Amino acid sequence: MPDLSLNQRIARAFGTPAVVVDLDVVERNIARVQALCDARGVANRPHIKTHKSPLFARMQVNAGAKGLTCQKLGEAEVMAAAGFDDLFVTYNLLGPDKIGRLGALRRSIDISVAADNPVVVAGLPEAAQIAGRPLDVLVECDTGRKRAGVETPGEAIALARAIAASPGLRFAGLMVYPPEDGAALTNRFIDEVKQGLAVHGLSVERVSNGGTPNLLTLGAIPAATEHRAGTSIFNDRMMMAAGWASLADCALSVVTTVVSRAGPERGILDAGSKIFTSDTGWGLTGHGYILEHPEAELARFAEEHGFLDLSRCNNRPGVGAVVRVIPNHVCVVVNVVGEIILVRGDEIIGPHHIEARGLSR
Amino acid sequence: MPDLSLNQRIARAFGTPAVVVDLDVVERNIARVQALCDARGVANRPHIKTHKSPLFARMQVNAGAKGLTCQKLGEAEVMAAAGFDDLFVTYNLLGPDKIGRLGALRRSIDISVAADNPVVVAGLPEAAQIAGRPLDVLVECDTGRKRAGVETPGEAIALARAIAASPGLRFAGLMVYPPEDGAALTNRFIDEVKQGLAVHGLSVERVSNGGTPNLLTLGAIPAATEHRAGTSIFNDRMMMAAGWASLADCALSVVTTVVSRAGPERGILDAGSKIFTSDTGWGLTGHGYILEHPEAELARFAEEHGFLDLSRCNNRPGVGAVVRVIPNHVCVVVNVVGEIILVRGDEIIGPHHIEARGLSR
Repeated sequence: MPDLSLNQRIARAFGTPAVVVDLDVVERNIARVQALCDARGVANRPHIKTHKSPLFARMQVNAGAKGLTCQKLGEAEVMAAAGFDDLFVTYNLLGPDKIGRLGALRRSIDISVAADNPVVVAGLPEAAQIAGRPLDVLVECDTGRKRAGVETPGEAIALARAIAASPGLRFAGLMVYPPEDGAALTNRFIDEVKQGLAVHGLSVERVSNGGTPNLLTLGAIPAATEHRAGTSIFNDRMMMAAGWASLADCALSVVTTVVSRAGPERGILDAGSKIFTSDTGWGLTGHGYILEHPEAELARFAEEHGFLDLSRCNNRPGVGAVVRVIPNHVCVVVNVVGEIILVRGDEIIGPHHIEARGLSR
Repeated sequence: MPDLSLNQRIARAFGTPAVVVDLDVVERNIARVQALCDARGVANRPHIKTHKSPLFARMQVNAGAKGLTCQKLGEAEVMAAAGFDDLFVTYNLLGPDKIGRLGALRRSIDISVAADNPVVVAGLPEAAQIAGRPLDVLVECDTGRKRAGVETPGEAIALARAIAASPGLRFAGLMVYPPEDGAALTNRFIDEVKQGLAVHGLSVERVSNGGTPNLLTLGAIPAATEHRAGTSIFNDRMMMAAGWASLADCALSVVTTVVSRAGPERGILDAGSKIFTSDTGWGLTGHGYILEHPEAELARFAEEHGFLDLSRCNNRPGVGAVVRVIPNHVCVVVNVVGEIILVRGDEIIGPHHIEARGLSR
């Protein structure tokens, strides 16, 4: 149907709302991150929490990624089953369910984990025992984001020594996820830990840095040996606000239909918080960027309604118009929908199932 | 394992985070709504957007519900396949994909739809034609919520007449979803439409009212013939804030583990926006109510982290503690997770798959 726009063809073939991913843009995004990492001599360990699918992980590894990062064990299980054998789970794993599954994974692949407290470290030797071989553990350090991680070099040193002294565990290095202006503090933190550990004969092999916006300053943390970026594969409004991405770098969009023009200045899309979620950040106004009507504001959501403020639109979309929306935050959209439509430019490839969708355990 | 708490047994059997639904509470919640509707002589047409599962729909119909409400055609398809034959889709359906699917459903079941504009009405006769029998259409009226719906009685009358004049369509009545203080305006709106339509020989058979908080004033819209409530089956913090539910009425909770005590006044749960979503409303502070630590605040989310502010806690949960959290908004949680664990009080029944999860098309 060459006379119909991509939007119309997607709507006819799959109905709306449909989440569309352009593989041409994905390939460019992957190549860009890989080139940055290569130029800095930093291993690329992309975070699969954004795409949650072996298809995209394979593209990343084929482009040069050393291994993958997973946020949850359920994601790691999907990636291991798909044949990826170098995984880093950047999360405190504890409890009998998690330890058993981690041990089972470690039997057959290289999997390392992060920990930020002694309770988690105390549980990990059992995973190594189940696996019958040692487990690499990195110490998660908080260098300003107030997220997870030990807050002082002293705590990091103590935890690293506890790891090194635990049966079956190997202290493998440090994991950081600094705020965008946090390089100086992070460098001081890492140096202090390195010096403190050297006294005890421990070296820091890996320093894992992360975050898509931090790719803008890749190299600002010279000790970093690898980088974990997730959102960079698809990008979104938040990554545009962060200065990392332009509209042309956004690979994922939601094809959605205007189902109502409730009032002269109002419109309603058939996609709400059950597609986009309510995530916002980076000082964004509104919940999405409408490609065909950038002056429209996706002002608020009900579960299946996206409420448009059209007051600043000269050209207001009528009922039945099919538009494409760049979400605020792609990672949560992929996690909700479970199925995306792959395209290349104007060509529809077909639907793709997101295998690790919803696996938060 | 009678020596372990339900939280611990859930964590051991399924891992955390796990979404738990107590069937005893569900049964009480269903009975409460049915009794209210029965007392007012209003048909109960529960909205399945909250539970998205034939299991719960069956419980509602067995308790006396006349039919079901669906927000999307995908939900209606799941319910029809499960044997439910009286469905109301409260949504503007348009485009060839939707019209074809609607026609196919109408062949075998009683399905009615809402419309709020002439473009949607113009598309519906094709569905009736595909079905080979007439389709009931209700006019969605906006009586103050600024959501979907025609904004004036005059528009409602014109749309009702357009429906009645369309081949294969039957004007079946009005659909409203008034704000909690909107009964007076809604009554005037309905009266004016009824009078206006009577002149043209059209009567208003059904007036469908909706919303869980509006159950508190059931009867305030005397013309209402049926009520659509969704959240009332599980309840959540928003329904508590609305004055409808108490903590004991909340059937759904998230069992989650404290995985970090990043600082003395901070804690981290292993459930974030990829479980709870970021939905908030009704003036709520925080993102969930922690049953074991009500003085803790679930202050913000990352995708897989729930950040606890423990500054007001005398008894602070340590790493490894398993707690239960009542979410702000259950409907979006069920739509994300896809699997819930059924319990009755302290007894675990087992996992249950949410069949219509993610079906927003």
